Amino acid sequence: MKVEGKNFRTIEASKDLSSVIIIDQTALPFNFNLVRISSLNEMQTAIRNMQVRGAPLIGVSGAYGIALACKQNTSNSSLEKARKCLIKTRPTAINLSWAVNKLCDKLLTIPEDKRLNEAWKWSEALANDDVFTNKKIGIAGLPILKDLNKSTLNILTHCNAGWLATIDYGTALSPIYLAVEYGIKLHVWIDETRPRNQGMSLTAWELEKAGIPHTIVADNAGGLLMQQGKVDCVLVGADRIGLDGSVCNKIGTYLKALSANAHNIPFYVAAPLSTFDKNFSIANAGFKIEERDPDELFIMRGMDNKGEVSTLRIGNGNGYNPAFDITPPEYITRIIYEDGTIKPKDIRSILS
Amino acid sequence: MKVEGKNFRTIEASKDLSSVIIIDQTALPFNFNLVRISSLNEMQTAIRNMQVRGAPLIGVSGAYGIALACKQNTSNSSLEKARKCLIKTRPTAINLSWAVNKLCDKLLTIPEDKRLNEAWKWSEALANDDVFTNKKIGIAGLPILKDLNKSTLNILTHCNAGWLATIDYGTALSPIYLAVEYGIKLHVWIDETRPRNQGMSLTAWELEKAGIPHTIVADNAGGLLMQQGKVDCVLVGADRIGLDGSVCNKIGTYLKALSANAHNIPFYVAAPLSTFDKNFSIANAGFKIEERDPDELFIMRGMDNKGEVSTLRIGNGNGYNPAFDITPPEYITRIIYEDGTIKPKDIRSILS
Repeated sequence: MKVEGKNFRTIEASKDLSSVIIIDQTALPFNFNLVRISSLNEMQTAIRNMQVRGAPLIGVSGAYGIALACKQNTSNSSLEKARKCLIKTRPTAINLSWAVNKLCDKLLTIPEDKRLNEAWKWSEALANDDVFTNKKIGIAGLPILKDLNKSTLNILTHCNAGWLATIDYGTALSPIYLAVEYGIKLHVWIDETRPRNQGMSLTAWELEKAGIPHTIVADNAGGLLMQQGKVDCVLVGADRIGLDGSVCNKIGTYLKALSANAHNIPFYVAAPLSTFDKNFSIANAGFKIEERDPDELFIMRGMDNKGEVSTLRIGNGNGYNPAFDITPPEYITRIIYEDGTIKPKDIRSILS
Repeated sequence: MKVEGKNFRTIEASKDLSSVIIIDQTALPFNFNLVRISSLNEMQTAIRNMQVRGAPLIGVSGAYGIALACKQNTSNSSLEKARKCLIKTRPTAINLSWAVNKLCDKLLTIPEDKRLNEAWKWSEALANDDVFTNKKIGIAGLPILKDLNKSTLNILTHCNAGWLATIDYGTALSPIYLAVEYGIKLHVWIDETRPRNQGMSLTAWELEKAGIPHTIVADNAGGLLMQQGKVDCVLVGADRIGLDGSVCNKIGTYLKALSANAHNIPFYVAAPLSTFDKNFSIANAGFKIEERDPDELFIMRGMDNKGEVSTLRIGNGNGYNPAFDITPPEYITRIIYEDGTIKPKDIRSILS
């Protein structure tokens, strides 16, 4: 997507294949910093510190991490070491281990002197696949937004399922970008998305750069907005979609689904097929929700009076910080994916 | 309530009736500061800056503001000036204008030389009435908590409806304090309550001082907690209760009511009769929700690295910050008030 008139992806190899350039997402929305990552070590740090985040993006970042490792050493033992180092930076991220394992396994089957070149090629292909998939999600979702047929379409979204979470276009935001291109007049309500505030800091930044009208609200506000008739549909991403059609997504998604249901407002989920998981359902998921550091609740990042990015402690004591919740299929109108849209109850038909 | 073994109210006249002592709520949870308010001017500042907040407390603060004004001048014109100055500090606060108008009207009917004494007496009586009412709310609510009959009762609350919002005991927290005294084992889930974080900074501080087990969660977490069976009831306060049984309370309350309903979890509201409003109903309320400064979303208060209370900008752009939402009567199990408990649909019987 464009930033100040210039096209960017969240991650790109340098032309001479000596390094990778990322957008430092921890500096947003205040600073747009491009950071050069030149070694495996630097990539580990970037993933761990969430300078790159979002499932598809950290998968590609992991692959590029292997390419950077190959720059120094393409031996089997070096590859195995790089694989371990990268996977442990975000142990619960399925895309990361998937991409790193897939690439490493492939490289181990080819001669050492071909590995560096293959690693770059494979990583770039993975990035391009993501971009293509997300474009298709946009195309699949556009008719839904058109059919809502509003003079100004008011969409509520939660967290960041935009291009910053992927390589480009995003998942939930992809149909929105396409709709605007298509000429549909719309406005997006952005949940700030506590505790990490990805809505306020990333989604709002994306939409501002794209010139799309939007308003940031506290996560608490969605119920009132729907009561007041200010929301025409909800559109969110997903971290995992089960065989039963239930959707695991950022904590707070479920509350918005309940409210949408109470007000007969359609609730859409947009995600690639790689998010669909045959082994996941609401019945077996309840106790496997990732719990993150409670300090994410208590320590805020932002810009201080001197204009520097800094932290502030806003509370203390005992906190509980689950990262996801699960929206049961009966609250989801349709799921948008790269090949079309589907009702949650019909997922079995495409997963079998 | 006790703080470090000593009893406090949120506001108290000094023994010599020269000033009023308040707990500075803007310094909590980091610092427990008592502040002496010696003039009308200082009281205006304290109310405006929310060093005192919560509907019952600012009503009493307004009355004490009139007493402080009388210290300097008890003339009719001085009283009228004090009345205007105080009411405009929080123009939407019904308790403030009610208390200030009631006291001023009364003082204007008596000789000037009796006014100072009467103002102090009346303000103290108003404070004592609040304490007594809240005690009764606790007594009315206790049987409900007992009847839930859990080995450990898990209660979810939103915002701060504790003693800090009143003179003592609180509304929603009053039955909780009494239940603990009674020997009921319980644990409280505290919504942080964005954007002003009254749950994280005030309710958590109260419960910590009272030694009551509690855990702070993001407002987004309540749906998951209920999915996981970790909530036995929801108990919140109210800013206004309508003749139709609908409850206007801090933004986000409605989302928790929707979720409680979906999981068959009882949802209780505790509030004094002064909160009941014959002229309010969900049908006429939708467009009258107070909208506050969007900067409340973007600017956080907390403790910086040097241990000083400071502010940080966590986002920017276009924000919408409604302060309340409305929970329809069908989502409310019972309302607890000073004379007992009542189903929302039966409110007409006590308001007519």
